[in-house]
Amino acid sequence: MSSMFESFLSTPEALDAFGDSNFVHAMLQFEASLARAQAASGLIPQDAADCIVECCKVELFDVAAIAADSRLAGSVAIPLVKSLRQAVRAVDDQTVGFVHVGATSQDVIDTAMALVVRQAVGFVKADVQRAAQALLVLAQRHAAHPVLARTLMQPASVTSFGLKCAAWCLPLVRGLQRLETRAATALSVQLGGAVGTLAQMAGKGPQIRALMALDLGLNDPGVCWHTQRDDWAALACELGLLVGSLGKIAKDIALMSQFELDELAEPSEEGRGGSSAMPHKRNPVACMVALAAAHQAPHRVAAILAAMPQEHERALGNWQAELAEWPGLLMCAQGSASAMAKALPGLQVNTLRMRANVESVRSVLPADAAATWFDPSLAVQAAEQARALVASLSAALAVLASA
Amino acid sequence: MSSMFESFLSTPEALDAFGDSNFVHAMLQFEASLARAQAASGLIPQDAADCIVECCKVELFDVAAIAADSRLAGSVAIPLVKSLRQAVRAVDDQTVGFVHVGATSQDVIDTAMALVVRQAVGFVKADVQRAAQALLVLAQRHAAHPVLARTLMQPASVTSFGLKCAAWCLPLVRGLQRLETRAATALSVQLGGAVGTLAQMAGKGPQIRALMALDLGLNDPGVCWHTQRDDWAALACELGLLVGSLGKIAKDIALMSQFELDELAEPSEEGRGGSSAMPHKRNPVACMVALAAAHQAPHRVAAILAAMPQEHERALGNWQAELAEWPGLLMCAQGSASAMAKALPGLQVNTLRMRANVESVRSVLPADAAATWFDPSLAVQAAEQARALVASLSAALAVLASA
Amino acid sequence: MSSMFESFLSTPEALDAFGDSNFVHAMLQFEASLARAQAASGLIPQDAADCIVECCKVELFDVAAIAADSRLAGSVAIPLVKSLRQAVRAVDDQTVGFVHVGATSQDVIDTAMALVVRQAVGFVKADVQRAAQALLVLAQRHAAHPVLARTLMQPASVTSFGLKCAAWCLPLVRGLQRLETRAATALSVQLGGAVGTLAQMAGKGPQIRALMALDLGLNDPGVCWHTQRDDWAALACELGLLVGSLGKIAKDIALMSQFELDELAEPSEEGRGGSSAMPHKRNPVACMVALAAAHQAPHRVAAILAAMPQEHERALGNWQAELAEWPGLLMCAQGSASAMAKALPGLQVNTLRMRANVESVRSVLPADAAATWFDPSLAVQAAEQARALVASLSAALAVLASA
Amino acid sequence: MSSMFESFLSTPEALDAFGDSNFVHAMLQFEASLARAQAASGLIPQDAADCIVECCKVELFDVAAIAADSRLAGSVAIPLVKSLRQAVRAVDDQTVGFVHVGATSQDVIDTAMALVVRQAVGFVKADVQRAAQALLVLAQRHAAHPVLARTLMQPASVTSFGLKCAAWCLPLVRGLQRLETRAATALSVQLGGAVGTLAQMAGKGPQIRALMALDLGLNDPGVCWHTQRDDWAALACELGLLVGSLGKIAKDIALMSQFELDELAEPSEEGRGGSSAMPHKRNPVACMVALAAAHQAPHRVAAILAAMPQEHERALGNWQAELAEWPGLLMCAQGSASAMAKALPGLQVNTLRMRANVESVRSVLPADAAATWFDPSLAVQAAEQARALVASLSAALAVLASA
Repeated sequence: MSSMFESFLSTPEALDAFGDSNFVHAMLQFEASLARAQAASGLIPQDAADCIVECCKVELFDVAAIAADSRLAGSVAIPLVKSLRQAVRAVDDQTVGFVHVGATSQDVIDTAMALVVRQAVGFVKADVQRAAQALLVLAQRHAAHPVLARTLMQPASVTSFGLKCAAWCLPLVRGLQRLETRAATALSVQLGGAVGTLAQMAGKGPQIRALMALDLGLNDPGVCWHTQRDDWAALACELGLLVGSLGKIAKDIALMSQFELDELAEPSEEGRGGSSAMPHKRNPVACMVALAAAHQAPHRVAAILAAMPQEHERALGNWQAELAEWPGLLMCAQGSASAMAKALPGLQVNTLRMRANVESVRSVLPADAAATWFDPSLAVQAAEQARALVASLSAALAVLASA
Repeated sequence: MSSMFESFLSTPEALDAFGDSNFVHAMLQFEASLARAQAASGLIPQDAADCIVECCKVELFDVAAIAADSRLAGSVAIPLVKSLRQAVRAVDDQTVGFVHVGATSQDVIDTAMALVVRQAVGFVKADVQRAAQALLVLAQRHAAHPVLARTLMQPASVTSFGLKCAAWCLPLVRGLQRLETRAATALSVQLGGAVGTLAQMAGKGPQIRALMALDLGLNDPGVCWHTQRDDWAALACELGLLVGSLGKIAKDIALMSQFELDELAEPSEEGRGGSSAMPHKRNPVACMVALAAAHQAPHRVAAILAAMPQEHERALGNWQAELAEWPGLLMCAQGSASAMAKALPGLQVNTLRMRANVESVRSVLPADAAATWFDPSLAVQAAEQARALVASLSAALAVLASA
Repeated sequence: MSSMFESFLSTPEALDAFGDSNFVHAMLQFEASLARAQAASGLIPQDAADCIVECCKVELFDVAAIAADSRLAGSVAIPLVKSLRQAVRAVDDQTVGFVHVGATSQDVIDTAMALVVRQAVGFVKADVQRAAQALLVLAQRHAAHPVLARTLMQPASVTSFGLKCAAWCLPLVRGLQRLETRAATALSVQLGGAVGTLAQMAGKGPQIRALMALDLGLNDPGVCWHTQRDDWAALACELGLLVGSLGKIAKDIALMSQFELDELAEPSEEGRGGSSAMPHKRNPVACMVALAAAHQAPHRVAAILAAMPQEHERALGNWQAELAEWPGLLMCAQGSASAMAKALPGLQVNTLRMRANVESVRSVLPADAAATWFDPSLAVQAAEQARALVASLSAALAVLASA
Repeated sequence: MSSMFESFLSTPEALDAFGDSNFVHAMLQFEASLARAQAASGLIPQDAADCIVECCKVELFDVAAIAADSRLAGSVAIPLVKSLRQAVRAVDDQTVGFVHVGATSQDVIDTAMALVVRQAVGFVKADVQRAAQALLVLAQRHAAHPVLARTLMQPASVTSFGLKCAAWCLPLVRGLQRLETRAATALSVQLGGAVGTLAQMAGKGPQIRALMALDLGLNDPGVCWHTQRDDWAALACELGLLVGSLGKIAKDIALMSQFELDELAEPSEEGRGGSSAMPHKRNPVACMVALAAAHQAPHRVAAILAAMPQEHERALGNWQAELAEWPGLLMCAQGSASAMAKALPGLQVNTLRMRANVESVRSVLPADAAATWFDPSLAVQAAEQARALVASLSAALAVLASA
């Protein structure tokens, strides 16, 4: 759980993904998978593995105590492993020595983090796809509807609202493609043992890592990545880019929803976007969430990048700082994606007003400028581009959806 | 509550301060204080105020439901005010109209935030004072003990360990002084009504704000600060500066605690700083926490500064983003201050090894360089400076402690 | 000089202040002042000091060569001191040994930086004062002119344009006050010698530092601040806060200058804010500059804060990184302040349109909401507050101007 | 040119790439290419194009005047186009109307930026390849040499220095691969005309853009990317990631070069890494440069990400802010890459001391811990991994070099 001010900008699913209980669950998935893989490769007895796997159930653990003890221990994995050993000992004293063999805290934590990040990234992807889909519908519907194009916050000429929507969609689709590519390598098992050499696994380390990757559905990076975290940090960058692209949409919608422009409005709903003081207000709260995320995410990404020069084989301070940035980054990414996915399908588009706004500008300009720059028929050419974009983006989105 | 990775770098008190329950409590303090002040100035009946105050008890509210509803409403204050009205209505239907009169969501939220930030700042101050005090003891004790002075990570000459400690302490004391000054104006009541003009309070707005300031122990800024948040952001800067100063201490201690230097060690304690893989390890976990904080805080401050260009009379997105940064900033400030306050009093200082390290350098240099730069007696001059600093810093700290 | 894209957002004076030639000049001011102070305190002969001072003329130095050599040396001071020694040797071989006695590179560089930062801060202060003054004129003139108050980018109620201007001015005046306080301690002589102990100055170090402070018009901090840079970083924070406050003004003006609102316009001028493609465009370029600065400055401040945990007695990498952020920070602060100082006195205020925009909202609302929230006479109460603020801010500004 | 403090952390080539003259040259390349493509597609006469191309020579332009005028105009392209029109008019009055037809300032500037960024990225790539190559040589040579593995700044076990080098190299190779992929789409022609629709190019816009892409060796993105800058921002992220990976190497080398560890030293050279005060000092200045870059780059990336929500069809302030971040980002990337490319081939490796440091730890531990964790023969297993990594990384690097 996060503070009220973060949770209010995110979604219950994202909050759960980064809840303590889910993280302990993910750490236990690591330990169970490790035991299975070590049994399969002959490092520990199958019986021991079975016993350990049996104990790796989050409901058997005191999550709050583990969180509390982590503060003194300086690691969330240390109390987890200690608790697991106690649980196993209670079942079978002989098996305790086969728990967490040859692994290190960072292996548990980084792999667990990859698991919960995968979950949260899944939510983000689904919502961005929904948002993109909604934009394509709007782009098709309004392909030829003229709207003012504005540069430096001033009317500049005429485009079509469909082309605006297609242009909003484009970076979402590109972003999903890049995210897909990046997640494929960044969501990796971490297994290096004490110092990255897997020295305590009798030469079977690489095989065990490969088995765990299969088991957990993560990438096998072939090496440990304790302090070489570029692929992982690159995933954070992709999330930051998506939040930026969503923020651009929200910025435009918020501007076009101003009373004096009145070209767009978020869908209305009971209890949504009201004011505690002014009953007449209808606030663009989806835009608010997406814009807030666009204010926060760049700083999360910066913190993750700044933490990259990690000392030696495990860092002091910057690894821990990096980890602490991920929940916030994903919560705001998910908040933004979810808000846009909900608002865009019902976006209220006032095409009459769009056209009237064009006319207002046209009417105050000299005839030649009016004709060159503010002829509503300029939307026709834009419509062609909009439809071409819709076609290519729909195809790309279909590929992504089936991935 | 925050994610496991943030909570592990903070303290239970800081987590509680930013917990949902405490924030709802703080919002209710605002509403109770508003009612009292509005009764005192004649805007609402005293009976109504009494009834409202009676209802402003956090235990009467469904905190989780308020948090959940805030997502749709786009504000945490809206479900709070709604719940409060329901609570009041259940007691006395006539009084409902006197709840939250003339105030706006931002008034509730900003004032509540000032209250919880004050609480968290109090923890930070106490811990920084403890850390500073511990450093003065060390500075006095080791005033004349020679230690290598190092520049660009290479031995440069000799100073005294006492002077190092006094120099570590100096920015803590300056930081406390600046924090004191800043908090005095930044921790302000927010009361502007719908758009900052207090138009719905029949001309009694300024008087009500003044009464509330007295009541809540906050500053009366004389105006509303809905979107003029420079003093408030300046407080965030001060916290960032303190975290930086604490991080500098942690960085030096971590470097001096390396096995090959062996000049310092964090106090040892059962369960502290162990390793899940390597039983011989003793990790400097207090330094870890302070260094992690120093990695995080600058980005929180940047986000708060970047949110300053807030639109018109209440911002869309950047206000909400700014608020969401405060818990993280204070949790890492408090984590860092608390870690240093605990570690510094028991810091293990190996003066023999410090002297031996000086000798090691001395022994490999030409005689004149050795004599000029690495004569242990260089610590004598440093000792004088150390003792002078201790005297002035002790005095300054006493003033702060009595404030 | 800086890249075209930075220079275009700044001013020629700020660019000159951080030009190589001016920085070499400032380093020579340090060396001359050091020589004078060391002669006055008897550490070096007066003749030697006179000779050194005579040589400390920037026109005698090959600035480009010093810049180029600094790359290999790892410090801009090393080639400077080397060049100065050559210059002195050419005049009097006996005097060379009295150059830069007991000082270190960081002493030269930090003090020179304080000198050029003082110069640039002076420009910023002057321009912010001008901007604040212009806002007070506007606030007085339009104290009672109604304008829509907008929250979350939607019309919320009515305020007065004068109150908006006064509220814009408030953080500028507070910011100037805080800047004044901070600069008084942050703009300090740096003098610590090799490792901060002034060990090579025969016990006269503190006296020499005090004399230099007087001579250069900087603060004498009483100690060295090689790696305890909190006061200095606090100055950066103040600049960041001012840029944020200026950005808020620019944001509002840009929004109110939209064609559909048409409430404000930047002053027009030949060659200003045109478009290479669209002859009808009039772009709010002063707002553009101030908004660009508000996008950049927070990241500069973050970088300066993040550099605070500096190793031991001189840092490796983070000191150098910190220094490199200052020119950019001050160039954007100065760019923003200068743009606003130029635009605000001639700001075109369309009070008729402001009133018409109020009427537009009023006309579409139910009668009671219209009467409660959008009665233009709401501006009357706001006018009172505006005038009170103008009075107090004028007084505060007068104090600042006379400082 | 940039401030002395930035230039000192970069290279002359990077400074030149972002110099005003080179940027004007790149803008002229855009205009020449536009004219050629418009002639080829029949939009303007071939004679006019020939005349325009002839005039697009940077030596014919007053670069300083263009830079100065850009401040008033609010765009660096406006004075450029004006100057170009003057130059063309001087040759042939009839041709002026064919200059810059249907294009907008942002087309010129973004394309010119892509050209200079490509140039600077080329320098970065070459230097990172050199650094990676040097690391592979070291990895091979020291594959089996034992060195302490350190976690949380404490000795944890033994690895091989060769494996450390291979692990340092890995993210450089991955980073080059990602950079290659990203640059292929991010380095794109910008051509959208006034508002992105190419409405003023008689339907030939897409063809003209395609021709220009071929001509300039840039990607044809198929659409304009005025305010959909995700691919471009993604390139900034890749640069930030590379700087982080280089910073990690520098951090480790700086730590291992400490006097008390004495395992590594940067190559020595006359005039390199000396001290103005202490003749015995030898400072790791390449590490200093790479660490400084790692402090700066994350904030540049954050600023670029934060600028993504760009308004409508051209942004006010955040586009300009984004552009201003690129020179700094590339200068520090290039500074870091170049420093490491120069230092790594001559890195002094003290394998005897590495082994002795292992023995020091071993000697103070209980026998079983010593045997398990600090047996130098642990390097044997690491050697195998090191050699396997060298093989795969060499192959990958060869592919990159031939690309």
